[in-house]
Amino acid sequence: MSKDEINALVIGRFQPFHKGHLEVIKAIARDCDSVTIGIGSAQFSHTLDNPFTAGERHLMISRAFKEEGLDNYFLVPIVDVNRYAVWVAHVVSLVPPFKAIYSNNPLTRRLFTEAGYEVRGAPLFNREAYSGTEIRRRMVAGEEWEYLVPKATVKVIEEIGGLGRMRDLSSGASPLRYSNEPAEGSWEDH
Amino acid sequence: MSKDEINALVIGRFQPFHKGHLEVIKAIARDCDSVTIGIGSAQFSHTLDNPFTAGERHLMISRAFKEEGLDNYFLVPIVDVNRYAVWVAHVVSLVPPFKAIYSNNPLTRRLFTEAGYEVRGAPLFNREAYSGTEIRRRMVAGEEWEYLVPKATVKVIEEIGGLGRMRDLSSGASPLRYSNEPAEGSWEDH
Amino acid sequence: MSKDEINALVIGRFQPFHKGHLEVIKAIARDCDSVTIGIGSAQFSHTLDNPFTAGERHLMISRAFKEEGLDNYFLVPIVDVNRYAVWVAHVVSLVPPFKAIYSNNPLTRRLFTEAGYEVRGAPLFNREAYSGTEIRRRMVAGEEWEYLVPKATVKVIEEIGGLGRMRDLSSGASPLRYSNEPAEGSWEDH
Amino acid sequence: MSKDEINALVIGRFQPFHKGHLEVIKAIARDCDSVTIGIGSAQFSHTLDNPFTAGERHLMISRAFKEEGLDNYFLVPIVDVNRYAVWVAHVVSLVPPFKAIYSNNPLTRRLFTEAGYEVRGAPLFNREAYSGTEIRRRMVAGEEWEYLVPKATVKVIEEIGGLGRMRDLSSGASPLRYSNEPAEGSWEDH
Amino acid sequence: MSKDEINALVIGRFQPFHKGHLEVIKAIARDCDSVTIGIGSAQFSHTLDNPFTAGERHLMISRAFKEEGLDNYFLVPIVDVNRYAVWVAHVVSLVPPFKAIYSNNPLTRRLFTEAGYEVRGAPLFNREAYSGTEIRRRMVAGEEWEYLVPKATVKVIEEIGGLGRMRDLSSGASPLRYSNEPAEGSWEDH
Amino acid sequence: MSKDEINALVIGRFQPFHKGHLEVIKAIARDCDSVTIGIGSAQFSHTLDNPFTAGERHLMISRAFKEEGLDNYFLVPIVDVNRYAVWVAHVVSLVPPFKAIYSNNPLTRRLFTEAGYEVRGAPLFNREAYSGTEIRRRMVAGEEWEYLVPKATVKVIEEIGGLGRMRDLSSGASPLRYSNEPAEGSWEDH
Repeated sequence: MSKDEINALVIGRFQPFHKGHLEVIKAIARDCDSVTIGIGSAQFSHTLDNPFTAGERHLMISRAFKEEGLDNYFLVPIVDVNRYAVWVAHVVSLVPPFKAIYSNNPLTRRLFTEAGYEVRGAPLFNREAYSGTEIRRRMVAGEEWEYLVPKATVKVIEEIGGLGRMRDLSSGASPLRYSNEPAEGSWEDH
Repeated sequence: MSKDEINALVIGRFQPFHKGHLEVIKAIARDCDSVTIGIGSAQFSHTLDNPFTAGERHLMISRAFKEEGLDNYFLVPIVDVNRYAVWVAHVVSLVPPFKAIYSNNPLTRRLFTEAGYEVRGAPLFNREAYSGTEIRRRMVAGEEWEYLVPKATVKVIEEIGGLGRMRDLSSGASPLRYSNEPAEGSWEDH
Repeated sequence: MSKDEINALVIGRFQPFHKGHLEVIKAIARDCDSVTIGIGSAQFSHTLDNPFTAGERHLMISRAFKEEGLDNYFLVPIVDVNRYAVWVAHVVSLVPPFKAIYSNNPLTRRLFTEAGYEVRGAPLFNREAYSGTEIRRRMVAGEEWEYLVPKATVKVIEEIGGLGRMRDLSSGASPLRYSNEPAEGSWEDH
Repeated sequence: MSKDEINALVIGRFQPFHKGHLEVIKAIARDCDSVTIGIGSAQFSHTLDNPFTAGERHLMISRAFKEEGLDNYFLVPIVDVNRYAVWVAHVVSLVPPFKAIYSNNPLTRRLFTEAGYEVRGAPLFNREAYSGTEIRRRMVAGEEWEYLVPKATVKVIEEIGGLGRMRDLSSGASPLRYSNEPAEGSWEDH
Repeated sequence: MSKDEINALVIGRFQPFHKGHLEVIKAIARDCDSVTIGIGSAQFSHTLDNPFTAGERHLMISRAFKEEGLDNYFLVPIVDVNRYAVWVAHVVSLVPPFKAIYSNNPLTRRLFTEAGYEVRGAPLFNREAYSGTEIRRRMVAGEEWEYLVPKATVKVIEEIGGLGRMRDLSSGASPLRYSNEPAEGSWEDH
Repeated sequence: MSKDEINALVIGRFQPFHKGHLEVIKAIARDCDSVTIGIGSAQFSHTLDNPFTAGERHLMISRAFKEEGLDNYFLVPIVDVNRYAVWVAHVVSLVPPFKAIYSNNPLTRRLFTEAGYEVRGAPLFNREAYSGTEIRRRMVAGEEWEYLVPKATVKVIEEIGGLGRMRDLSSGASPLRYSNEPAEGSWEDH
């Protein structure tokens, strides 16, 4: 990446990393010299909406890219900040310099536009087929989900015991806040 | 403000500052030597419930007071703290010394009473007409809202492109948490 | 507690401490050399779900144990952390070394199991009768609640004016975020 | 302040607000339509280097401006953030929109220049005479200091018992960290 | 503890808990109905000045009191907050209600006096003999230190491998900030 | 990386990334299947000890590895946490699963050993020649430094204007705390 090269930024949560994510990033990588992938909400794990740690998601994506022969990328975990007004500056400090951000999210688009960045629409993919929410639902329900994600994602989830973790998450209350309805036989929140 | 003078505290979010707010503060200012206005939830902006930054709200209020010839006031942004047990001490450290707080909020009243402050009922105003929630709804819906706020508020929102920001906010997912339903065409949360 | 002694950990919010809690801890204390009780969500107070401070809950439990002649315990407030991935390390650093944790909460069980701790099922008690949610509802509604908690809990709530606090909490908006529907006559959030 | 008006930003700690500060701000106010004064390190108080709360400093400055007939200003407390990379965005979100920042601090100059703001050199004043460090030293030592600050500053310090507070600060260890050498007779840190 | 009973508060770091601490607390316990001991800087451990976790210090103190037959006490870890202006409210929310605080630290005395609490001088003890700083120095240097602390402290430090930890601490750089001079052979900070 | 493969962890600040760092990592990469490099103190930038953002350091390292043909690595920014007791859990959640950590820092070694990880000594390199402190000193002093770092580091520092930034850093006070001695002509801290 020289000064004339284009590094593009995309941000997602990747809970887990699926084939729709992969398609989008491959399309961007064809247009740009390199792609920076921000792993959003990096601080979360072990919840039903955010089952996997930033490190586990890092591994899913790295391996999937290796399978695809994709190597012109930067992979950066990004923890949330609680103030939109500083969010762009926060992201910018964590990732290598970039020329454009790809996003279809109106607020992301607005915040980066206000900050003077070029914002491009993200390539479309089959969102009916590929959805993190649906994949997580299938994992908990015991339905097929493996064909919706790269092999690397299947392998990482297998190695870390991810299905067992999600089953636990789907059956119980939060140990931190104790504010959900507790599972049968639990006394902690009562 | 000498030791015998009365400085009164009122706290609001002012998203945005409207004529109901102005009426209340003018009434308090007639009874007291000075009024301290706390701009609550100062850390929030760029959300549908909290579209404007603390600095933008500061400007709305300052200019409206100038239009009204009101000058015996202190204007102080107050970020939230996550613990009620230290909230009064937090507020007290940020604002000039005050003799009384005006509030109709039972918890605010209780917390300041427990801390030994004089708590007074806030003057009533026409809450049917003036409501931040309703004004924000009108701004997004493209209905009339300008007559509900001081001219200063209209001017600030115009200068900062506030209506465009709110339209963006009403159409998209949060870039920070990626946990809402995303807008059409967005892939980040999938 | 020597190296061969068993110190057991249990965690709850104790809002307030009731007879179900007491039964469970007494049962554990019979099986172990000592019990460490973690007072969870220690940073919260003055909300409907978390009315009492960590210090007030500490006092309820200490006195109830004195009434019962129970003295082989450690009582430790534990504030929430926002990341499950570090929660076990956080708890472990705050409490005396322990050999086992008693919990029926699946996620708590999983997190501590992954960290290499022995996890045991918590003894059962009559959850129909004893429930913090139900007791708080009764306190607000003016119904009988005293027979559901140890005498020590009644006395502490009386000394700190706990019923008055809960009545206030049930009638008003949050002073911190101003995002709930405000109480009649309140203007702060409008 | 219309779109063509110049609002200028200056930031200081004002521990306490002295005549050098006042001279600089008056000079800027002559050149611009309005001045925003950021009260830096707003979260600190009760230390030897930062004896006064943000609210107390707010009062010193407001009153001094009233004595001077200065009214085209905005006064905004700014708490520190621990990351320079987001500091400009943090400041910008708290203050009314501004056209230029006055600073002689090279890093402040650089950070705001990188962010696209006009940076101007702050007017010079007699730094031999006016220095917060020297004034605080004099206050603790019982030497003359009043002639170095506006009357408003003297009055506020008197009303809040500021000299007594500083004498305490100069004689003892920190209650928070217990890591300084404790005062004679103190046992807490031993 | 009824409404007429006196609960007294004392705060220390107890790194480690030594005989001077014990003497002071025993003296206070003779004058009052109960004593609340705040374990300050509870978040620190594994540094030369703060080698032991809050949980380890909790255990030292509890056992020492059991050896002494002292049972009218409350033991509460207190994490630091970074603002003196809210420190008293923070402490008050974590500990059972108290009537007086014993301290010889001028700032602690001032902060609690300003907040309306009765502040009493802590009993004197032989500070030449008993000092946490000196005891930690002896532990690292391999000199005698055991006679300066209660047997319970010796036992806890033995059980947790505390001497080994302190030797490590005395030989190396911080893993978190990497800003100290590194130990011989370390490359991380270079 | 399968279950039998060895992923190794090393952590540094890399301010900036130099040839000594590169030698160590290459040596580890020869012994293991992959290396995870943690970029420590990721939140810092724009100070004399920490001039470069995490994103800038990320770019230096990525490019240097590309120059070397090294591709079996994971690169992960790690922000500091203020408590050693949770530091290992924090790191573990951010990085891909690893089998061993290479470190010569005694505390890092101890913390990871206590947590059950295999800790290996980091390979030695010529620390006389390669030192971040010395390189930063040379950059500020205008002496030769380029031969001490990979070409990629030189290029990144050139692209981001790193030398200009460091000259600014070496001449001025902190804009955040205003507690250092200010530069000539600065008034902010006086």
